[in-house]
Amino acid sequence: LRSGATLLGDWGTSRLRLFHVVEGTITGRASGAGIGAFDRSPAQTLNETIAALGDIGPIAGIALCGMVGSRNGLVEVPYALCPIDLAGWRAAAVPVAMDLPVTIAPGLACVRPDGAPDVMRGEETQVFGALALAPELATGRHLIGLPGTHGKWVVVEDGTVQHFRTYLTGELYALLQEHSTLTRAGSDSAADAGDAHHAGFDAGLARALDGSDLLGALFEARSAQLRSGASHGWALGFLSGLLIGHEVHEGAASAAAVTLIGDPALTALYARALDACGISSVALSGDACSLAGLGLLHSPGVSA
Amino acid sequence: LRSGATLLGDWGTSRLRLFHVVEGTITGRASGAGIGAFDRSPAQTLNETIAALGDIGPIAGIALCGMVGSRNGLVEVPYALCPIDLAGWRAAAVPVAMDLPVTIAPGLACVRPDGAPDVMRGEETQVFGALALAPELATGRHLIGLPGTHGKWVVVEDGTVQHFRTYLTGELYALLQEHSTLTRAGSDSAADAGDAHHAGFDAGLARALDGSDLLGALFEARSAQLRSGASHGWALGFLSGLLIGHEVHEGAASAAAVTLIGDPALTALYARALDACGISSVALSGDACSLAGLGLLHSPGVSA
Repeated sequence: LRSGATLLGDWGTSRLRLFHVVEGTITGRASGAGIGAFDRSPAQTLNETIAALGDIGPIAGIALCGMVGSRNGLVEVPYALCPIDLAGWRAAAVPVAMDLPVTIAPGLACVRPDGAPDVMRGEETQVFGALALAPELATGRHLIGLPGTHGKWVVVEDGTVQHFRTYLTGELYALLQEHSTLTRAGSDSAADAGDAHHAGFDAGLARALDGSDLLGALFEARSAQLRSGASHGWALGFLSGLLIGHEVHEGAASAAAVTLIGDPALTALYARALDACGISSVALSGDACSLAGLGLLHSPGVSA
Repeated sequence: LRSGATLLGDWGTSRLRLFHVVEGTITGRASGAGIGAFDRSPAQTLNETIAALGDIGPIAGIALCGMVGSRNGLVEVPYALCPIDLAGWRAAAVPVAMDLPVTIAPGLACVRPDGAPDVMRGEETQVFGALALAPELATGRHLIGLPGTHGKWVVVEDGTVQHFRTYLTGELYALLQEHSTLTRAGSDSAADAGDAHHAGFDAGLARALDGSDLLGALFEARSAQLRSGASHGWALGFLSGLLIGHEVHEGAASAAAVTLIGDPALTALYARALDACGISSVALSGDACSLAGLGLLHSPGVSA
């Protein structure tokens, strides 16, 4: 696997995103069903997604990260235990013999400072990719935030992942948006939905940062519609600002500066919330970090 | 309406619970569809539920509380504004001319000490009922907790409802149980489900009281299944203890003793959580308080 074209894939719960990469350049991409979402075997899903890339010529190997290594994935890959550095993580990657040689990234498990266990699958690949892309992260102590369905805040020290904590922010927002009584009490004007969302975000963020507890603040999304003429869009913005505000207030509390990794639209919201806390941030692309991390599994250090 | 048989009903989002009461004694009961759940008009639903009581003889009047007074109810009843006492609340009740005279209890609205609006429909009837049932609550300052889908913590001073705060505890627990990724990661043994739920409740309660923030603690329900062999039942208990612990920690923080109103199984869980916070509690039956409060709308003070 020292050279030539490779396939790198981030295979999470909701979808497989597969990239054809030659010498560090993306030359093709295709999507497939996520782990748990496919109606055939993981191997069939992978092969069909590869076929969707078209005529790509010979491939040296495939590296995958994410829920592909969970119980319902291609093969169950044990969590690697924190604290762990790049060499330890690479050594815990699991080769799978298919038509092409496949390497699956191990997720990480840790025991948090409060004694509770925590786990991740996929974000570790982005973290090690970020350390390769931004070498200043590889020395000293850094706090890295990876917002998403299950947001992670990761403490890295001299290139070693020490521990991390998961926040349910993204999943909770989706649950409240889709299934709760909170957002549908008011009316909405399509014309001002964007402005209302923005104003709601700021109101929710302010509520999070004034010390209000989360359980006692969520209902304001509804009561503001019933009592203050707030719109549906405002309520959604309020919930987003409230949840993100609580996450950064807790996750980044002790830091002066953090690195964010993720989708640019999402990291921009987090940067706004961090700024309101007086914490500076730098954002890295989630895709770039994933590909850099997956590429590390194919570098001379681990290939045969 | 000074005497004779009356119908008293608590008509919430999920159902109508109607009681036939003679001289303070329940002599019949029937259930109907909740507000928003019925497939015919509110008036038809009410009449059919009355018919389900059978041959009940002459009725002096009907008093209803809850979402029946909301926009989708029988008639929209404006919120009465806090601070408010019994006389003010009764004066804001709305008569509706149907086959029988119907009185609908007004919900309450307040501006919380933090400046946010809050609302309730139904719990105010239980609070005023409790003041009638337990006269020691009618003087001095008291904190009353009404756990449920939207849990309320109400500050009453010399019989006047000053303000209150809503906690999303019950709704959030249901959302997490039914729709989240948190509870289905582990296995379960039917034999120990009750014990596991109990142990999980205590673990979640301890986590709430050790100062952990809610967003960063929820995911432990899942990670404990993946890493510590916790069961599905444990995870549900953990979520219940974590949410109730957070609610009482915030809602009852400043009190030495509180009064709980609600379903006995639920108030028992809250009493356990309060006890862990060093706060004593007395529980009153939610049904008894509802009926006492509805009866106040039919007393000589308001009837013609």
